[in-house]
Amino acid sequence: MTDSNCIFCKIANGDIPSATIYEDDLFRVILDISPAMKGHALILPKNHCHDLTDIEEATAAKALLVASKVEKAMMKVLSCDGVNLLQNTGAAAGQSVFHLHFHLIPRYENDSVTIPWTTLSYADGEANELAAKLKAAL
Amino acid sequence: MTDSNCIFCKIANGDIPSATIYEDDLFRVILDISPAMKGHALILPKNHCHDLTDIEEATAAKALLVASKVEKAMMKVLSCDGVNLLQNTGAAAGQSVFHLHFHLIPRYENDSVTIPWTTLSYADGEANELAAKLKAAL
Repeated sequence: MTDSNCIFCKIANGDIPSATIYEDDLFRVILDISPAMKGHALILPKNHCHDLTDIEEATAAKALLVASKVEKAMMKVLSCDGVNLLQNTGAAAGQSVFHLHFHLIPRYENDSVTIPWTTLSYADGEANELAAKLKAAL
Repeated sequence: MTDSNCIFCKIANGDIPSATIYEDDLFRVILDISPAMKGHALILPKNHCHDLTDIEEATAAKALLVASKVEKAMMKVLSCDGVNLLQNTGAAAGQSVFHLHFHLIPRYENDSVTIPWTTLSYADGEANELAAKLKAAL
C-alpha cells in the first residue's frame, strides 16, 4: 500500500526519478541526494510504513539481505573500509521523512563522518532490572 | 557455528551472563553495559559472522522482526520518543567487536546522543553514474 502524500512512496515506486542502485518487488535502493559520503544509499520499501515499529513481515524478512548485497557492492566499487547501516524511528532519533528507510553510509579510515555517543553506566543490578522490564513488555 | 575466541559468541550463547531482554534459537538481545542511553540494547546472532557482508540468510530474515519487537517494548517501558537502529561494518565504521551486532538506542527529544553528519553534494550526472556502477556490481 502506498500513501499518495509521501515523497518516498513516489520515489520507491518510480513516480519521481532517482539514482537507483537496486529494485525488486519490495524495495528500491537509491543514492541519497544529500550524502554523508558519496555512495550513501537509502533502502526504501515500496509499501508505506512509518518506521521499524510498523514494518511489514515480508519487508522485514528481506531488507537485510538487500542491505548485505548493496554493502558488498559498495566495498567493491568504492573501496570503502566500512559501512554504517542506520535506521531512525521518530523525529527525536533524526527521522525526517516518515516512510521507513535504511541508510547505508560508506566509511573510510579517519573520514569526517561521526556517529559518536558518550556512554552512561548502570548502578549495581540496574541493568538486570531494566532488562526484566523490557522482557516483560515484549 | 560459534567462534571460541569471540566474546559475543560467549554472551549470545549464555556462557557469559548478560542482562538479557530476549532470546530465541537464533538471537540473544542484551543491554549494552556501556549504554549511549539507558536501555541501549544489542541484538546478537548466536551464530558467528563478522558483519552484514557475511550474514547468514536465516539471521538476516529474522533480525528486523526481533528489532521491531524490542523497539516497541522500549517505547512502552522507557517512554522514549524514538529509537536508532545502528549496525557498523568495519573498524572505520566504528565496529569494535567483530561479531555482527545491531544497536538499538532509545532516544528522547533534545537528548545528548548525536548521530550527525555534514552532507556533500553530487555534480550534475555524478549520482546517476555512481548508481549505475553500484548496480553493475550487485
